[in-house]
Amino acid sequence: MQTFGVLYLLPVGLGECNIEHVLPKRNIELVKKLTFFIAENAKEARAFLKQCQYSEMSKAQLSLINQHTKTDELTSFLAPLLQGNDMGLMSDAGCPGIADPGAEIIKIAHKKGIKVVPLVGPSSIVLSIMASGFNGQNFAFNGYLPIEKLEKHKKIKELEQCCIKNKQAQFFIETPYRNVTLFEDLLKILQPNTLLLVATNITLEQESILVKPISVWKKINPPDFIKQPTVFGIYQ
Amino acid sequence: MQTFGVLYLLPVGLGECNIEHVLPKRNIELVKKLTFFIAENAKEARAFLKQCQYSEMSKAQLSLINQHTKTDELTSFLAPLLQGNDMGLMSDAGCPGIADPGAEIIKIAHKKGIKVVPLVGPSSIVLSIMASGFNGQNFAFNGYLPIEKLEKHKKIKELEQCCIKNKQAQFFIETPYRNVTLFEDLLKILQPNTLLLVATNITLEQESILVKPISVWKKINPPDFIKQPTVFGIYQ
Repeated sequence: MQTFGVLYLLPVGLGECNIEHVLPKRNIELVKKLTFFIAENAKEARAFLKQCQYSEMSKAQLSLINQHTKTDELTSFLAPLLQGNDMGLMSDAGCPGIADPGAEIIKIAHKKGIKVVPLVGPSSIVLSIMASGFNGQNFAFNGYLPIEKLEKHKKIKELEQCCIKNKQAQFFIETPYRNVTLFEDLLKILQPNTLLLVATNITLEQESILVKPISVWKKINPPDFIKQPTVFGIYQ
Repeated sequence: MQTFGVLYLLPVGLGECNIEHVLPKRNIELVKKLTFFIAENAKEARAFLKQCQYSEMSKAQLSLINQHTKTDELTSFLAPLLQGNDMGLMSDAGCPGIADPGAEIIKIAHKKGIKVVPLVGPSSIVLSIMASGFNGQNFAFNGYLPIEKLEKHKKIKELEQCCIKNKQAQFFIETPYRNVTLFEDLLKILQPNTLLLVATNITLEQESILVKPISVWKKINPPDFIKQPTVFGIYQ
């Protein structure tokens, strides 16, 4: 009987940071032992390997995925695992499988009976949920809200209702250059006593995590989040 | 103007493990510098400090919380922060603020304008979401399902409908001694093509993460999860 390799899910830092601040030592030791990787972007993957002091960069074999990669191709990427080699699945930033195209690879791995081992690491979404103080027993991450204005407004109202009716905290993200518009929409649409979390540059030097009711946000300067990676959350 | 201390959210290992496997070096260095801690259980908090090679155990000041601690008392626990001392909020296991009573402390800290800094660490829920391969753009954690049988069955059906209608993956936990009953309920109630994740002993030596359609689970032995900490997830 052929023994398959293990698919390790390798979190990556969320920006320019000392990786010892955000990754356990085990991850870094493990990365050094791997040859086969699946990543979103070759340049960023190599930069991460370098941070881990990966010694023989020329030996690292990278398969690149994005949200458009077809299932057949994704399946072919798993060939080294079927031949008994361990592989590492990396995200561009943060944790594979959370708000990144890696989930599809993981799904196929389970279907083939390949062992999947997630490693601990930074996720701006998860760290924002922790730091929100909202409801750690009941929360949802909704990815990106709709781009079209009316649909977006409808979605924001729906999410607020979901907080109120189900006591479920709601988290979402936005393309950084649209942060300001989304923030303005939230202030306009949400109820005054709804709490809004704005978490920017998580784990980085300029990290800022603010939670205030809409009524307070309306009276103060907006957070310093223009074009910065930001997670939003609401709860009541 | 008085400068407040920082409230650090300190994740703790998920069981007997080498903490270097699950915590970044920064966390361990930071823990050693703190004097004031908020924790759920004195014995486990001290065991964690010992793992971090905390040197002067007699100097560590612990305030203990549980889900019944009143808001007034929680507020009084934050006194060292208001006096300018940093504090560490620990969970019994995993990440503070996620499925633990720490969220209430964090909420009060934000209200008082105290800076909250979440540190990277293991969360069985988050690692299960990563490893599920379900939908990393849209997921919800629902905590514990209702105990009463009919209510539980209704909730399971609702969660499955939420997967189908909203493409939102659903995760939940159960008190370990009830894992078998919940698993049997899931097999009975869910549609044959619904995928079920059973993730047991995450980050520990006996870690097991399995994802299979209900139709397959019905034909094979149940996972080895009797009285073991387990995260469940469903998606279609």
